[in-house]
Amino acid sequence: MEGEDHLAFERNKAEFDVDAMKIVWAGSAHALEVSDRMSRLVASDPAFRKDHRPMLGRKELFKSTLKKAAYAWKRIIELRLTEEEASMLRSFVDEPAFTDLHWGMFIPAIKGQGTEEQQQKWLPLAQRMQIIGCYAQTELGHGSNVQGLETTATFDPKTDEFVIHSPTLTSSKWWPGGLGKVSTHAVVYARLITDGRDHGVHGFIVQLRSLDDHLPLPGITVGDIGMKFGNGAYNTMDNGVLRFEHVRIPRDQMLMRVSQVTREGKYVQSNVPRQLVYGTMVYVRQTIVSDASTAMSRAVCIAARYSAVRRQFGGNNGSLESQVIDYKTQQARLFPLLASAYAFRFVGEWLKWLYTDVMKRLQANDFSTLPEAHACTAGLKSLTTSATSDGIEECRKLCGGHGYLCSSGLPELFAVYVPTCTYEGDNIVLLLQVARHLMKVISRLGSGKKPVGTTAYMGRVEQLLEARSDVQKAEDWLNPNTVLRAFEARAARMSVACAKNLTKFSNPEEGFQELLADLVDAARAHCQLIVVSK
Amino acid sequence: MEGEDHLAFERNKAEFDVDAMKIVWAGSAHALEVSDRMSRLVASDPAFRKDHRPMLGRKELFKSTLKKAAYAWKRIIELRLTEEEASMLRSFVDEPAFTDLHWGMFIPAIKGQGTEEQQQKWLPLAQRMQIIGCYAQTELGHGSNVQGLETTATFDPKTDEFVIHSPTLTSSKWWPGGLGKVSTHAVVYARLITDGRDHGVHGFIVQLRSLDDHLPLPGITVGDIGMKFGNGAYNTMDNGVLRFEHVRIPRDQMLMRVSQVTREGKYVQSNVPRQLVYGTMVYVRQTIVSDASTAMSRAVCIAARYSAVRRQFGGNNGSLESQVIDYKTQQARLFPLLASAYAFRFVGEWLKWLYTDVMKRLQANDFSTLPEAHACTAGLKSLTTSATSDGIEECRKLCGGHGYLCSSGLPELFAVYVPTCTYEGDNIVLLLQVARHLMKVISRLGSGKKPVGTTAYMGRVEQLLEARSDVQKAEDWLNPNTVLRAFEARAARMSVACAKNLTKFSNPEEGFQELLADLVDAARAHCQLIVVSK
Repeated sequence: MEGEDHLAFERNKAEFDVDAMKIVWAGSAHALEVSDRMSRLVASDPAFRKDHRPMLGRKELFKSTLKKAAYAWKRIIELRLTEEEASMLRSFVDEPAFTDLHWGMFIPAIKGQGTEEQQQKWLPLAQRMQIIGCYAQTELGHGSNVQGLETTATFDPKTDEFVIHSPTLTSSKWWPGGLGKVSTHAVVYARLITDGRDHGVHGFIVQLRSLDDHLPLPGITVGDIGMKFGNGAYNTMDNGVLRFEHVRIPRDQMLMRVSQVTREGKYVQSNVPRQLVYGTMVYVRQTIVSDASTAMSRAVCIAARYSAVRRQFGGNNGSLESQVIDYKTQQARLFPLLASAYAFRFVGEWLKWLYTDVMKRLQANDFSTLPEAHACTAGLKSLTTSATSDGIEECRKLCGGHGYLCSSGLPELFAVYVPTCTYEGDNIVLLLQVARHLMKVISRLGSGKKPVGTTAYMGRVEQLLEARSDVQKAEDWLNPNTVLRAFEARAARMSVACAKNLTKFSNPEEGFQELLADLVDAARAHCQLIVVSK
Repeated sequence: MEGEDHLAFERNKAEFDVDAMKIVWAGSAHALEVSDRMSRLVASDPAFRKDHRPMLGRKELFKSTLKKAAYAWKRIIELRLTEEEASMLRSFVDEPAFTDLHWGMFIPAIKGQGTEEQQQKWLPLAQRMQIIGCYAQTELGHGSNVQGLETTATFDPKTDEFVIHSPTLTSSKWWPGGLGKVSTHAVVYARLITDGRDHGVHGFIVQLRSLDDHLPLPGITVGDIGMKFGNGAYNTMDNGVLRFEHVRIPRDQMLMRVSQVTREGKYVQSNVPRQLVYGTMVYVRQTIVSDASTAMSRAVCIAARYSAVRRQFGGNNGSLESQVIDYKTQQARLFPLLASAYAFRFVGEWLKWLYTDVMKRLQANDFSTLPEAHACTAGLKSLTTSATSDGIEECRKLCGGHGYLCSSGLPELFAVYVPTCTYEGDNIVLLLQVARHLMKVISRLGSGKKPVGTTAYMGRVEQLLEARSDVQKAEDWLNPNTVLRAFEARAARMSVACAKNLTKFSNPEEGFQELLADLVDAARAHCQLIVVSK
């Protein structure tokens, strides 16, 4: 009984070429081969086991993560894995760890914001893991509003040093992964103050712990912020809290690629375009959209397999009960999520193209498409991660009681996924950025400036406001153009309605605040249109 | 700074009598006094601490729950608490434990389904906790479809015994709380078979573990089914798996209040009305609705306080940033949940009345209102628990990153609450029961049989189908009757549309299966109307 393949019957019904679809999903035959090989490597090695993770206490869990991260590093070197292979291996190890921040935020921050000299000094240390770094931006009182950060870095010309200080409770750094227990260094974001003037938020390399005994250095208070949602999940990460009591660092530990402080304490801007930062944002958010499709596909896969195997009701006279996948209620909940997983994958592929395009233009000093690309990736990050969080939980419910067991994989998948709705831009705040962009596009329509990229349809706004769907019967919806027109008309109408209502306020910012809820809806409709159109 | 009451400003703005509202919420001044006293008792006793719960491994967590349950029992006796006080104390201890099943399911099952003799034999043992019992109904392959249970209880007239057996993998008992590690006994639900005839599912008292060394008795395989969703949460419960290999029990351990098996193996029904079982269901689901309002209110309370304290954006020139509770997007998400918490509380109070009314009628052999009351409680259980699960998660998101920390209380609240959507009737299956009832009500409209209770509005169906809302402007919605009429018209139209579509099928059951998704929507609309009307 246990050896039977209960899914063979369903699998044999596939009307498409499964192997061809695997390649489409992976992006290329090469990507599929690497992914397949790395997944087998992780699955077949008991050192990477995950099944006991949910029942470990925090301390054992954290120890096991350190061990696994060290072991993965060892295997990557032994097997001489390429960067692509190593990154795929880490994604199958599938356990958040301090290394994510070290490789994914600390090193890139130095690369992106450090001068040549700074890179030469710090990168080799970091790449050999002789120092371990994290990215200390968010504060207890300041998440979305980065410009409101309170930590100060005051230049002292007498000693040629910056004094890093946490002036209030709310200025405590809060959340950085890798900070709580592991990191020896951090890129710390703080308000730069020279000669009494506040120059806004800048990055500084600060050593936190001794390289001899790993104890915090004088003036530094650091610790773990405690348990997070779920079993296992993000509890393998040492998210931390950090406070500075007038900690001094040499002047050359300010990241000085874009702006500098001279020996005399003068603040100087370099000629490196600040817009490059937005390029990085487009990149990070594009990977988040791809990851959304992966997370959604995992959940849908578990729920679809369960629905095919599980039988309930409808068995009469000793015949088998009905497969729950045949219930319309199950289908109405599961199939749209399956479709979303594919839609997010394709929109993620398109975002890769968008990133390449934006970077090419930036290098040619063409910043014209940047605002649209920025709004577009912000909106898609928001839309896809919210839908995926909700979708994973829906898949869990679709597995009935069994989805509540950690052995289904769904509880940990949900718990480890949901912070994606908050980090790299809170999903509501991001939709409001999209809304601001849409309002700007509409306000410029009269000026003859043509809307570009994903807002191009706004150029046909008068036509769209008057458009009526020619749908007569259900099957008409199977025409993709009909669907696209409907989404365009909907998005255009919602945005235009907001824009009209905004004009009723003498103070535009007051109007914006008053209409927030409608603006979020309009932005969401616009993002849904983008997903439909790609 | 830390000693300041950041909420005083908001609290002082209340335009209603807060103390009077507390009494309304509690149900009475007496209930408020008991609740207040018990909450202080639990909060002030370090033995009941909860803060370390999320970071414990499974073994330490379970040990700490056993300790707490024993300590609570000791305090209840020392303080000579009344049943009301004891139950309130347990609810503030707020940790699922085997005792929930022992007191809440095992003992009531014997009381409700056992004969006088059986009660006299088993209840004193259970009430002194000399035996500990659980409720073994659900099987690995059978949850919602109780009639499909596979465990067998075959009468052997030679020895005057029942043979309890698990014939298949799917017949393994799966989920019962208290079963995995603690229970010595269980009420086991199994198909009664006498002389080759299957009489359907009945309850049997079966000893599982030795009272001397707590080891499983011969023929019994029993264990814990592992980790469940979340930190702490339901992992304090030993949900279990149980298999029988031809286990023999004396004939008098079948619960024989409603039906009996004689010494000769004859199956006999008593004259106790079977409908009494539905009375119990109405009772249990009524408590679930009250509990939904409690869970929702906790989450809303945390999110509302956070929203008042948290400030983000909008601070200029050193002034404080804006409280996030002042953002319309925050309000549009939070306030409906606050309103739902109150709505569910009031509908729960009304269900208490309904239960009393149903029980009075049952005792007078009046079964006329039972189907409507049963459909009504099933629907309200489904609606309120789904809304509360989603609401808790929404509150968690409303707290931004901070809601992801266990210290916010929200992750554990969500994880411990969500199974409510599945147990005591899966929420989708329950809505389909409501839909079946609604279709029956509509089909009988022509017969002159007046719809009763919460379906009474169906008597005005023709009028409702033609009704048009007279709403002209937003403020018109502030008239409760306008809202009520709109909900009535909506519910009636959705049900009537389903009923019409059903007539297009020659096989009504096939039609029902085809229209499942629409039927669920119609049932939900009906339940929303009930909440609005109470």
